[in-house]
Amino acid sequence: MATLKKIPLVLMGCGGVGRQLLQHIVSCRSLHANLGVHLRVVGVSDSKSLVVASDVFTKEFNDNLLSEICRLKADHSSLSTLISGECQVFLDSDLRGKLSEIASLLGTSTGLAFVDCSASSETVEILTQAVDLGCCIVLANKKPLTSTKEDYDKLVSRPRRIRYESTVGAGLPVIASLNRILSSGDPVHRIVGSLSGTLGYVMSEVEDGKPLSQVVKAAKSLGYTEPGLIAILNFYIAVDHSFFLNPRDDLSGMDVARKALILARLLGMRINIDSIKIESLYPEEMGPNIMSVEDFLSTGLPLLDNDIGERVRKASLNGNVLRYVCVIEGSRCTVGIQELPKNSPLGRLRGSDNVLEIYSRCYSEQPLVIQGAGAGNDTTAAGVLADILDIQDLFP
Amino acid sequence: MATLKKIPLVLMGCGGVGRQLLQHIVSCRSLHANLGVHLRVVGVSDSKSLVVASDVFTKEFNDNLLSEICRLKADHSSLSTLISGECQVFLDSDLRGKLSEIASLLGTSTGLAFVDCSASSETVEILTQAVDLGCCIVLANKKPLTSTKEDYDKLVSRPRRIRYESTVGAGLPVIASLNRILSSGDPVHRIVGSLSGTLGYVMSEVEDGKPLSQVVKAAKSLGYTEPGLIAILNFYIAVDHSFFLNPRDDLSGMDVARKALILARLLGMRINIDSIKIESLYPEEMGPNIMSVEDFLSTGLPLLDNDIGERVRKASLNGNVLRYVCVIEGSRCTVGIQELPKNSPLGRLRGSDNVLEIYSRCYSEQPLVIQGAGAGNDTTAAGVLADILDIQDLFP
Repeated sequence: MATLKKIPLVLMGCGGVGRQLLQHIVSCRSLHANLGVHLRVVGVSDSKSLVVASDVFTKEFNDNLLSEICRLKADHSSLSTLISGECQVFLDSDLRGKLSEIASLLGTSTGLAFVDCSASSETVEILTQAVDLGCCIVLANKKPLTSTKEDYDKLVSRPRRIRYESTVGAGLPVIASLNRILSSGDPVHRIVGSLSGTLGYVMSEVEDGKPLSQVVKAAKSLGYTEPGLIAILNFYIAVDHSFFLNPRDDLSGMDVARKALILARLLGMRINIDSIKIESLYPEEMGPNIMSVEDFLSTGLPLLDNDIGERVRKASLNGNVLRYVCVIEGSRCTVGIQELPKNSPLGRLRGSDNVLEIYSRCYSEQPLVIQGAGAGNDTTAAGVLADILDIQDLFP
Repeated sequence: MATLKKIPLVLMGCGGVGRQLLQHIVSCRSLHANLGVHLRVVGVSDSKSLVVASDVFTKEFNDNLLSEICRLKADHSSLSTLISGECQVFLDSDLRGKLSEIASLLGTSTGLAFVDCSASSETVEILTQAVDLGCCIVLANKKPLTSTKEDYDKLVSRPRRIRYESTVGAGLPVIASLNRILSSGDPVHRIVGSLSGTLGYVMSEVEDGKPLSQVVKAAKSLGYTEPGLIAILNFYIAVDHSFFLNPRDDLSGMDVARKALILARLLGMRINIDSIKIESLYPEEMGPNIMSVEDFLSTGLPLLDNDIGERVRKASLNGNVLRYVCVIEGSRCTVGIQELPKNSPLGRLRGSDNVLEIYSRCYSEQPLVIQGAGAGNDTTAAGVLADILDIQDLFP
């Protein structure tokens, strides 16, 4: 067996997805060795701290240490509490400086991939810097890609060195497929999709006659008061845990709008998030700056039950259902509720599956359809891992 | 703008798909320049002749010459009739020797991609040799990959240097998606698919009550006797032209079996084509060695109309439809007619679209579904082109 190609990694964000990624990396050791690749983790950060291998050129976190990090984060502990002779800990103000130092050291020598599994908008600075320094970047985090046009342009300035499959539809091969279509000169003229496991689930449940407030509340309280425990558990598995902290990021449509923006920019549209027409499931006066999560759930949401119930009934009279979809066409990008035939691919969608329809020259009458689980830490982390393996040829 | 990365190409087979590929290459020049890539065609062969640039290190076929080749092949002329000072022509016995000479010259220097758009089983020798010499290979041709296990192992011995998306479902991102899933350590345990535009179309038409013999005959004769001209035209666009030469390669299930074998081998199954249980739409005594195409169409096929019509009616009584599908599961790989619920993804399939359902750990309850046009020269060539762009990082 030839020597393994080593891909040095720094992981930013080791909550749900990041932690799952570390577990996948450990459990895929022999599979990846068969593919001729070894993933060498040299640094891991959470929001407040960064742990780095004692020598980033030659050392790495061994699998015991990676498992220890996973245990720590499963307990919601800070990385800074990690005790090991194999790594150094950097805090707060030292964190960013150390990250750019590593990028600078490895970017042009052994190569380095920065993997962003955080949900932070603050990683964009180190990511653009890493790109400039010759590093690859792999993102599950949507926020850097949905920042300003200037930031976006910098991030994608070396298109072969960036992958971000898991920002849209988790591990579903959406970005990879679009990149294939685009690079073959087949112009994409329309994308329609249901890209939120959360909203997919909510719209299915509401379609079955359940009040919106109960669907959301029951989901959030993990089904203590709800008989449909299996549905709730599926939901729990399918959605991002951030939903349980702030359900409004999903219900506002903002999460879908970010995904739509990523797709629209991939198609070459020069737009920002505020160019997207977004329909929120709740009115402004129930927004996070005005109402607490508790008030939103207990008094805000119930006020919306009748309206959404009425829309569901009206649609049903026409043989239609309501779906929360994104539409990208020409220079237009919108996200919101649409009334669709019950018997269309989007109308048939149940639960938390995502679906994307791509129309192009090659797929003109009938679209190219990609459908499947579009959320969940396992699937999302698997998409990140596939992205990392996909850039292996850029490493020496 | 930095200098463009040059990818030298030799194209084997310039019938329908190969010719379309050359047209795509020409029309994508500025798109590919924006991506930093230039495709440098240094050789093109058909079954009898090979034309090669005068100096494979520095020269290439210019776009006029590529267009001239396309015109020639559209007229069903031989490449050997090409008259140009920019290239040399090699015939018959010199052909293979010249191909290996080019592979040897470029494989370790500028890199070289051999692109097989032929339908020949004889390219496998030069392809395995090219792999040994450090070249990349890109295939739309199923036959080399469905040859012996030994040949297959040689072809995929450098897994990063081979792409073959267009062998299954034309340009649909089937192989690329499976590779992503597999490299992320998500084990695929079941694949179910409808992978033949031809048989998809035939089964839809038969479902509508048309006799099998008429569907096939009408399609073959391009609709001269058939009122459903649009359907026929769609069919004509969707299927491989080889169908019109010998419809039995499709109707025997052999074409689907080859695709199933490619998928099964990708999943790691160590099988040959004769390990696959294949249901043919016609009995052995109507095989190509016993009956001419004309006799098959005029007297053979009509004998099968009642039987298939009866199966369609029986299925319909159970609310089901017949579909010609491949199933890969455990160590089992079968292709044949299955009775499926009218309301399942496969049952809903109409016309020549392909659909593939992938079940894995991440996609366990609900599969990952990929659906869309799975045939046609344009789409197939687009898949080949996407493959070529996908290996760009392997070139200096």
